[in-house]
Amino acid sequence: MAHKLLLLTQDNDKYRQLLSHCQLPELTILGDDPSSICEADIWFAEPQLAAPLLNLGSELKWMQSTFAGVDKLTGSRQRRDYALTNIKGIFGPLMSEYLFGYLLAHQREHAKYKQQQQQQQWAPGNFRTLQGQHLLLLGTGSIAQHIAQTAKHFGMTVTGLSKSAVSKPYFDHIDTIEQLATYLPKAQAIASILPSTLDTENLLNADMLALLPPESVLFNLGRGNVLDLDALAKQLKQQPKQHAVLDVFNQEPLSSEHPIWQCPNAIITPHIAAPSFPEQVVEVFADNYRLWRQQHPLKHQVDFIKGY
Amino acid sequence: MAHKLLLLTQDNDKYRQLLSHCQLPELTILGDDPSSICEADIWFAEPQLAAPLLNLGSELKWMQSTFAGVDKLTGSRQRRDYALTNIKGIFGPLMSEYLFGYLLAHQREHAKYKQQQQQQQWAPGNFRTLQGQHLLLLGTGSIAQHIAQTAKHFGMTVTGLSKSAVSKPYFDHIDTIEQLATYLPKAQAIASILPSTLDTENLLNADMLALLPPESVLFNLGRGNVLDLDALAKQLKQQPKQHAVLDVFNQEPLSSEHPIWQCPNAIITPHIAAPSFPEQVVEVFADNYRLWRQQHPLKHQVDFIKGY
Repeated sequence: MAHKLLLLTQDNDKYRQLLSHCQLPELTILGDDPSSICEADIWFAEPQLAAPLLNLGSELKWMQSTFAGVDKLTGSRQRRDYALTNIKGIFGPLMSEYLFGYLLAHQREHAKYKQQQQQQQWAPGNFRTLQGQHLLLLGTGSIAQHIAQTAKHFGMTVTGLSKSAVSKPYFDHIDTIEQLATYLPKAQAIASILPSTLDTENLLNADMLALLPPESVLFNLGRGNVLDLDALAKQLKQQPKQHAVLDVFNQEPLSSEHPIWQCPNAIITPHIAAPSFPEQVVEVFADNYRLWRQQHPLKHQVDFIKGY
Repeated sequence: MAHKLLLLTQDNDKYRQLLSHCQLPELTILGDDPSSICEADIWFAEPQLAAPLLNLGSELKWMQSTFAGVDKLTGSRQRRDYALTNIKGIFGPLMSEYLFGYLLAHQREHAKYKQQQQQQQWAPGNFRTLQGQHLLLLGTGSIAQHIAQTAKHFGMTVTGLSKSAVSKPYFDHIDTIEQLATYLPKAQAIASILPSTLDTENLLNADMLALLPPESVLFNLGRGNVLDLDALAKQLKQQPKQHAVLDVFNQEPLSSEHPIWQCPNAIITPHIAAPSFPEQVVEVFADNYRLWRQQHPLKHQVDFIKGY
């Protein structure tokens, strides 16, 4: 059976080229005109571009999201009569690079030594190492597992919190996310890699943030709405030795008015921790297309109820 | 037989306390007065403090260096009638933290995103990852092996160069240091962890440095005299996309007059990549003391001819 593919990304030209090279059988890649929305049975899309067009997709049977985060498509009022797959498994190494890059820069005091260099000052100082530090990961999925593995390599102790507390490799200890308040005060580094669901919304609120140790580093790498950003900005002002490294925000781009931009103890990056590389996304799609044609279960299919 | 220990470090009080706690049998820890130099049969010393006093140590039988680098003690005109041991095995994790902290900061563009933050600017950009990059390590000893293992975890390809080219774990490929010129042009990151010996002196001279790829990052973490610092400073001016991260220097502290301090594409740190933690050094000494009393071979004994 022949299939028609709609591209809804900010980089359609690049994807059209890569997908053509795959020579996938019986697949027509449609043009970018609006009529393609009604014609296509397969969508290859960024969630925020696909969401407003969902109800126009009268032929839609399967959508391959080019992102990991699909919360724009899993709202309770949105249609759920198609197969939705996302991207998993390729983000762990990139998230690890981001997290350990900033964690090492902080613990090994890149900023202090840069300042000393500018003053031609030779002054070895006190010393911190990741060895023996405690990393608390909110989330225990494939990304968190890769981060946990990296942390073990650096000699850290790693606790993971998840809904189910099911055992996963590389963690020293796993518990339920309900126990968050017990673990926050014990960790030197805390990272949320949680998806956006009803359970995770505003989990890191003012009360929880108040439990962070005075010299801890908090990372938000999953979804913006897990964190109360206003509460964090206030707290960072009062706790100058606490640090936060934030890559995801409730509203992106983050408003240029938000006070967190100016916090000297916050690092703000524009959602770059783990971008999807087109080549890798196309590989996931091509694998899934073959499975789809054989009516086999797709890889990384999203559960609309769970939201991930 | 009773032994007398001389402490020659910048932190004698700390070491005296730690060593007392070990309750090593038949060991008297001498005071810091000059007469101790002639009395002690065991020295526990920083090489640069011990070197000028060597000929006064009429009872010296064994010296435990508190550093890895012992080139101050292995010059061809210095006495070699005692056992010299150094510190090995504890530096790998610290060197890995230093190297990957700065490598990730560079590849994941911490400086660019910091500048954007200062301007409240949200601008995701091009993207680099360590995955697939080529790391060239000069040296294949215990520190280099730990770095190689970290690099493999981050998905890099790792080549090691050593005198013997003997196979070692974690390296994809090992060759002799004579082949340096063949490998330099192929590496994205290059790190020297070489000790200071006659063979390694000035190895990274102007001719070799000229072979570095235009966007490479060079680390010097072993010994300062492996690198021609003046030649590097000149080259970095001409090659603004090349970067260097330097922790060791021929003369330490590095003269405040040296032009390398001002290179925007050089990072200078004051020999802090892998400090010896007193607790770990004392542990090595205590193990060796027990071996010494039993007249067993010591751990990490230095070969005066090889110089490491």
